[in-house]
Amino acid sequence: MRATLMYGAHDVRVESFPDASLVEPTDALVTVTRSAICGSDLWPYNQMEPSDTGRRMGHEFIGVVEDVGADVRTMKPGDLVVTPFVWSDGTCVFCRAGLQPSCLRGGRYGADGVDGGQGEAVRVPQADGTLVVLPVGEDSELMPSLLTLSDVMATGHHAARAANVGPGTSVAVVGGGAVGLCGVIAAKRLGAEQIVILGRHPDRIALAKEFGATDVVSERGEEAVERVREMTDDLGAHAVLECVGHGESTHTAVGIPRPGGAVGRVGLPQEDSIPEAVRTFFDNVTIAGGPAPARAYIEELLPDVLDGTIEPGRVFDRVIGLDEVPDGYRAMDEREAIKVLVEP
Amino acid sequence: MRATLMYGAHDVRVESFPDASLVEPTDALVTVTRSAICGSDLWPYNQMEPSDTGRRMGHEFIGVVEDVGADVRTMKPGDLVVTPFVWSDGTCVFCRAGLQPSCLRGGRYGADGVDGGQGEAVRVPQADGTLVVLPVGEDSELMPSLLTLSDVMATGHHAARAANVGPGTSVAVVGGGAVGLCGVIAAKRLGAEQIVILGRHPDRIALAKEFGATDVVSERGEEAVERVREMTDDLGAHAVLECVGHGESTHTAVGIPRPGGAVGRVGLPQEDSIPEAVRTFFDNVTIAGGPAPARAYIEELLPDVLDGTIEPGRVFDRVIGLDEVPDGYRAMDEREAIKVLVEP
Repeated sequence: MRATLMYGAHDVRVESFPDASLVEPTDALVTVTRSAICGSDLWPYNQMEPSDTGRRMGHEFIGVVEDVGADVRTMKPGDLVVTPFVWSDGTCVFCRAGLQPSCLRGGRYGADGVDGGQGEAVRVPQADGTLVVLPVGEDSELMPSLLTLSDVMATGHHAARAANVGPGTSVAVVGGGAVGLCGVIAAKRLGAEQIVILGRHPDRIALAKEFGATDVVSERGEEAVERVREMTDDLGAHAVLECVGHGESTHTAVGIPRPGGAVGRVGLPQEDSIPEAVRTFFDNVTIAGGPAPARAYIEELLPDVLDGTIEPGRVFDRVIGLDEVPDGYRAMDEREAIKVLVEP
Repeated sequence: MRATLMYGAHDVRVESFPDASLVEPTDALVTVTRSAICGSDLWPYNQMEPSDTGRRMGHEFIGVVEDVGADVRTMKPGDLVVTPFVWSDGTCVFCRAGLQPSCLRGGRYGADGVDGGQGEAVRVPQADGTLVVLPVGEDSELMPSLLTLSDVMATGHHAARAANVGPGTSVAVVGGGAVGLCGVIAAKRLGAEQIVILGRHPDRIALAKEFGATDVVSERGEEAVERVREMTDDLGAHAVLECVGHGESTHTAVGIPRPGGAVGRVGLPQEDSIPEAVRTFFDNVTIAGGPAPARAYIEELLPDVLDGTIEPGRVFDRVIGLDEVPDGYRAMDEREAIKVLVEP
């Protein structure tokens, strides 16, 4: 089989491996039918130290179950399944609380002998706790939207949940990438009245508006904070979705909430402290978020994807084959593409 | 009338002033029957730059209404009232949301021409939105506990609420001062199963145990984090109450929650950033809190004080007259007293 490896910054290769196969009785063997490149893949794409052995890449995929271990109960060969971006056992204290990324017996794709998703096949550990069977055929036109449940739509939804978005709220979305765009979808779905997107790229802004953004702020930093304040009766927004993770975007994000408001952060933090501890204290601003419990959210969001209420698959603006994955990374890194879908 | 002024660090004086009197039609004139020195008063007590004019002190008091402005509806002369530590109009968007410290037309005691509470009388602005009439006589033995509703008990309760303390949770309380002790009361009242107090003073620890603390950690920093982890099945606590505000205590606090847990911060932050942004992100830890909406909490907590379910007044371990207030500051600052009650 063929799969994607990263050997260092800007060094992505598609190589041949021995075929994936079952190891544990709780494994499922899945042939990948759709995969994706994630915004978080761009962090190592820009920063990874050179490695001789490389790192298997990809954590978003849909595929067909080829075989299952003896203990797998909830799927059978031939089922179409979608994975959350981490695998989890579904039974530990955190899984039962709906926080699967903290599973005590879970882990990441592309690490510790587990395949990455940007390849032809994946051995999925803890299949029952991880995979969700999809009630559609593998050629469904819903495939791009279903694939976003692996990560990007779940993550936008998590930002909105963490920021307590609800009916009638005002929401600011920091970051016009694929996660921010899904944050707009999530905010609208949860009943937000005003959705301000902070971003600059015309095509992404246009998509944000189609998804439900009511206002656009192209300024950055303190100017952006001021603009959002003006748009919200000088109060600030109820909810802020931090979908980037940079120091600057985090600083902007924590400046925007009104007293009693919240910041839902889903952008991987690039700095190890959260600024404005005093102002957020005096304003009783809540800071929440982290890796999305996609496994829990798939079940929540799936009906809305199936009936077409939300169309997060529109964030994919490029479709490539497996051999083109290295160029897919380049295209996303250079912002030529919002998000890249891979058909292995 | 006589009232307390602070002229700089360690320079507290009780001086004579013209009697307080009504100014606005929404004012109430209150003769103070009980007042208190707050842990937050110790920040200026240690750090205030010398001032020629001084600063009026005190924001916790109970008193008798002497007179009311023409627009005041909910109280009359002779009523016994307790004040939250800030005044608020009760009608703005934030007051209606139960976040009175962010009132658009509210303010602080001892500032902008408003008296401080460590004195004989106070003109209370926005009396209807601020004061709560107490259904007891001014000599009730419940007076110390009722007085804690002004600030310290409300603040401990806010820490617990912000940290999502609920039935069956494990709670760590960082800080063994009066607020931390009230945090223990609040955690127990909200159904916490395990309450770990982080502190060292034997008398405070003893009181914490009487209030419901189940475990004690006398270590600090990383050692304290490790100890709490051991006590919570290596998972960390569900909820952490940060009741100090120092950089070190904040660092300890954010290290303690389990994945999906929360830190409720009520200690005035002495540093302008929150540490451990990456670890709290990966663990989906929520950071919340700020100044307590005491006005809202008085109504919630009052029944439990009246029927003796909670006895937060036990945090007062010294009673002084108004002239002794400067020594009261010294005693609290030197940790000779946990909290000082003033009978003017």
